[in-house]
Amino acid sequence: MNTNTKRTPLSDLGEFGLIEHLTKSIKNRNKSTQKAVGDDAAVMNYGTKCVVASTDILLEGIHFDLTYTPLKHLGYKAAVVNFSDIYAMNAQPAQLLVAIGISSRFCVEDIEQIYEGINLACEIYNVDLAGGDTSTSLTGLTLGLTVLGEADKEKICYRNGAKPNDLICLTGNLGAAYMGLQLLEREKKVFEGNANVQPQFDGYDYILQRFLKPEARRDIIDAMKDVGVVPTAMIDISDGLSSEIMHICKQSNAGARIYLDRIPIASQTFKLAEEMGIDAVTAALNGGEDYELLFTLPLALQNKIKDLGGIDIIGHIVEAQDGCCLVTPDGSEIVLQAQGWRHT
Amino acid sequence: MNTNTKRTPLSDLGEFGLIEHLTKSIKNRNKSTQKAVGDDAAVMNYGTKCVVASTDILLEGIHFDLTYTPLKHLGYKAAVVNFSDIYAMNAQPAQLLVAIGISSRFCVEDIEQIYEGINLACEIYNVDLAGGDTSTSLTGLTLGLTVLGEADKEKICYRNGAKPNDLICLTGNLGAAYMGLQLLEREKKVFEGNANVQPQFDGYDYILQRFLKPEARRDIIDAMKDVGVVPTAMIDISDGLSSEIMHICKQSNAGARIYLDRIPIASQTFKLAEEMGIDAVTAALNGGEDYELLFTLPLALQNKIKDLGGIDIIGHIVEAQDGCCLVTPDGSEIVLQAQGWRHT
Repeated sequence: MNTNTKRTPLSDLGEFGLIEHLTKSIKNRNKSTQKAVGDDAAVMNYGTKCVVASTDILLEGIHFDLTYTPLKHLGYKAAVVNFSDIYAMNAQPAQLLVAIGISSRFCVEDIEQIYEGINLACEIYNVDLAGGDTSTSLTGLTLGLTVLGEADKEKICYRNGAKPNDLICLTGNLGAAYMGLQLLEREKKVFEGNANVQPQFDGYDYILQRFLKPEARRDIIDAMKDVGVVPTAMIDISDGLSSEIMHICKQSNAGARIYLDRIPIASQTFKLAEEMGIDAVTAALNGGEDYELLFTLPLALQNKIKDLGGIDIIGHIVEAQDGCCLVTPDGSEIVLQAQGWRHT
Repeated sequence: MNTNTKRTPLSDLGEFGLIEHLTKSIKNRNKSTQKAVGDDAAVMNYGTKCVVASTDILLEGIHFDLTYTPLKHLGYKAAVVNFSDIYAMNAQPAQLLVAIGISSRFCVEDIEQIYEGINLACEIYNVDLAGGDTSTSLTGLTLGLTVLGEADKEKICYRNGAKPNDLICLTGNLGAAYMGLQLLEREKKVFEGNANVQPQFDGYDYILQRFLKPEARRDIIDAMKDVGVVPTAMIDISDGLSSEIMHICKQSNAGARIYLDRIPIASQTFKLAEEMGIDAVTAALNGGEDYELLFTLPLALQNKIKDLGGIDIIGHIVEAQDGCCLVTPDGSEIVLQAQGWRHT
């Protein structure tokens, strides 16, 4: 541990502040390094083909709770959320490396289930399990997944290409995974109070699936490729719409207007939010783990996107000095706040 | 957790058994996947250039003990041992992805120190810090490092190319890092018994450095390139000489003879082993964390290697049916045993 006198708590910086602080002075040495820190994935340039790479760490008790997460689902989700980072670069995932730390409370059959989920995701998304590392652990389960993807150099979408007047587009709907998690947490508490009570999940299969077994939007990437559309900027929604649009705006040196009444929210999300006294729009803005794609497009491409289906236009890019705001139906503007983790 | 009746303890399979069990039915789907599970790194083929990738997970209490590991050293070592995997493919590391899980007992300055070590390693080995993931953790520090490297397709060394009569070559010396760890553990116990006692490290600077701040053998890879030598098989020594030669033999469908009196052991390693009543040869065979290179070469290349310096010929490859044995000075043969972790 550090023996210097100064000890700045991590909570002073938060996740994004810490990343920025640690990586601000990075200079690249290799000509193959096209894009380093600061996007959904790193980009390496090998001629006309680029390799994109992204890594995620998943820790028991932080990213998953095995009380209600089947191990096969955990493996599937861990792989798919990594693939989502690659699609967010407008690339195709191709190889997966899996590092796993296992404590002795797990048995061979447990690890088999995790790998069944990983293998199923690889099969569905056409990815090869290409390597990894297994280790013992003192404290539960740790997963470190790295995915490599491929793209033509000129097709890669970064976060920094959004221009004023670009349309802000969103796939699917938001807040469902967050409400699925709230439901699981509620039923876990009930169960802990009385083990004879059966959990009440009726009518909430969709939001549970969105949390426990999310899918990456390969379909949208493939559809945009078919009609020859390349977004000006793209990101996947892992931390919530607010954070992600602010990443795009910061890196594109732009602002944004998001129209509250255009944010798509599923009926089960609304229903449970109402039942639990949670604001559904807040869940949609800040809930996270949606793994939908948020991207920007020149106005001229609006028609091409309209016909694809499954994509909503929820706002537009403005000049940087106009900031990132949510516009309510009565026309008032609320400044958006970033999320990301904070130690409390 | 698994609710099936059958629960096979992880100790029944051990590390290598588990990896084999989990990956035996893998089929590759992407034409860029040249080599998946089963070597120091995965190999992806993009024309004449190949990308190699390796991942490692490091868990507090398993892979490092912060009682005696300075955080800067931890960052440096975590990066360098990953680079070592890339050199073991006869490739050059180029990009590093760092995933880190941090509990709230760490402060910003602690994380800065880890990154100082990582950045120093990147500077010395000419690698770009290209991305990563930061996360909170409930239980200490977790590092997940992934390194990408580059090589010409025909220069890549796998584990499976060793042929009978090939020379078995080794860089540097073995057992030093293991004895460095034993010294640190001994002094930690003394300190825990009496906090006023200062640790006794005099005369053991070399073995402490081998454990706390190892280097990867880039010098040997560069020197072999200069004289146009490409090994038939290569691996880096992370789990100990016994395990690594058995990996080469298994994948090359061959056997080996290693001559006990040719295994290089440093004088500090011998001295401390004697002081602590540990067999120095066992430390060299099974200690691990040496990060030296073990490789095989056709007999005809012996002269080219001899002039490079820093490489010892410690044995030769034989037919598979003759097994993997250590030959003692009196000519008797001891069958080698694999290591790797086992839950006990």
